[in-house]
Amino acid sequence: MSRAAPTGWQAVHDEALRRIQTREWPPGALIPGEEDLAAELGCARATVNRALRELAEAGLLERRRKAGTRVTEVPSRRAQMSISRIAEEIETRGARPGYALIAADDTPMPPARRHALGIGPDTPTRHVEALHLADGAPYVHENRWISLAAMPAAASADFTTMSANEWLLRHAPFSHGTLDYSAAAAGEAASHLGCDAQTPVMVLDRATFGPETPITWVRLTYAPGFHLHMKI
Amino acid sequence: MSRAAPTGWQAVHDEALRRIQTREWPPGALIPGEEDLAAELGCARATVNRALRELAEAGLLERRRKAGTRVTEVPSRRAQMSISRIAEEIETRGARPGYALIAADDTPMPPARRHALGIGPDTPTRHVEALHLADGAPYVHENRWISLAAMPAAASADFTTMSANEWLLRHAPFSHGTLDYSAAAAGEAASHLGCDAQTPVMVLDRATFGPETPITWVRLTYAPGFHLHMKI
Repeated sequence: MSRAAPTGWQAVHDEALRRIQTREWPPGALIPGEEDLAAELGCARATVNRALRELAEAGLLERRRKAGTRVTEVPSRRAQMSISRIAEEIETRGARPGYALIAADDTPMPPARRHALGIGPDTPTRHVEALHLADGAPYVHENRWISLAAMPAAASADFTTMSANEWLLRHAPFSHGTLDYSAAAAGEAASHLGCDAQTPVMVLDRATFGPETPITWVRLTYAPGFHLHMKI
Repeated sequence: MSRAAPTGWQAVHDEALRRIQTREWPPGALIPGEEDLAAELGCARATVNRALRELAEAGLLERRRKAGTRVTEVPSRRAQMSISRIAEEIETRGARPGYALIAADDTPMPPARRHALGIGPDTPTRHVEALHLADGAPYVHENRWISLAAMPAAASADFTTMSANEWLLRHAPFSHGTLDYSAAAAGEAASHLGCDAQTPVMVLDRATFGPETPITWVRLTYAPGFHLHMKI
């Protein structure tokens, strides 16, 4: 990188990353101050700050207000995964999405799940069971409860053509949530997924909360062969 | 938020998030320009920019250079997960980490994996098989190949006390990688994990690359009961 060229934060980021990877800045080492780097690389201090913040967020640098910035000794990295509509997830995998409602009824929410989500025993819920398809084949079985305290409109929503997944993404004031993946035998979802009850499958338990209230809990049981892909 | 109070980017972020969640800024709507927001909220335009960038990175806003910034119609959210040393992962789960080397040898890397990783048939590799323990119980079985073209020192490294996982994090110029989780029967790892070969378990296939060369491929087979937890 030439000192004379005007320098954006991405170029500073790449240069700093190069120095970390080539061990010009070895693990544990204190790196130069922002002002020195700005002078060396011919850019504003704010540009250096932006670039180093990215590297700190990626876990490669450790920034301390007074002690300066060090190269992380044993970096922990963050993996990212995009959470989207199930139909979109299927399209991303290059398949045509399909949807079939199995049941929309008052099946009670399991008490343990109510407790985990913070939905009291008197709060009404609506139960929705559905199957999502990829090119006509089972992709994931959805077993969901929606809190009618958070989403009263879910009581009368028609999930025949629009899935609860899509309906909630459009209507619920989604704020934060938890995802819990595990491996399990297909069990009760097996008949919908077209496999044996003993077949190992990926299960996703997902809880979603609005700014103030729990909205929904869903167990997604993926068909055999599903892979969860992430980048680091 | 009072117009008079000095406003940091986090406060602007929270206020914008509130407007999105309450649908004061409804899905698909164009939001006010950065200068207008800065004037309204009593802060610098750069502060607004920082806050909106965070919301765009979280998938809640869509920014177009000339067309302005819109609230995402059906937001796709990103889940984040921290990737750290296996020993650290075990500690995070509140258990005491343990490690036992099973084999460090020249077992050839499966050709399909060589191909997927881009390691030619003539590139030497070292094979390492190990078991990681949590409070003395099997936590995850590790079956790994390291490219000696990328990491010649791995040929003579002693993995008896330091795991290949830890050794690589300390020595390899880690740049990027892929993670692939799936559910499978425990199979060959079953005897090490203390379960039946048919037991459903979570499998992680992880490929790691340096700036220029593939470094390592590892299959981690987790003990039954493992959960992968993420936040959105």
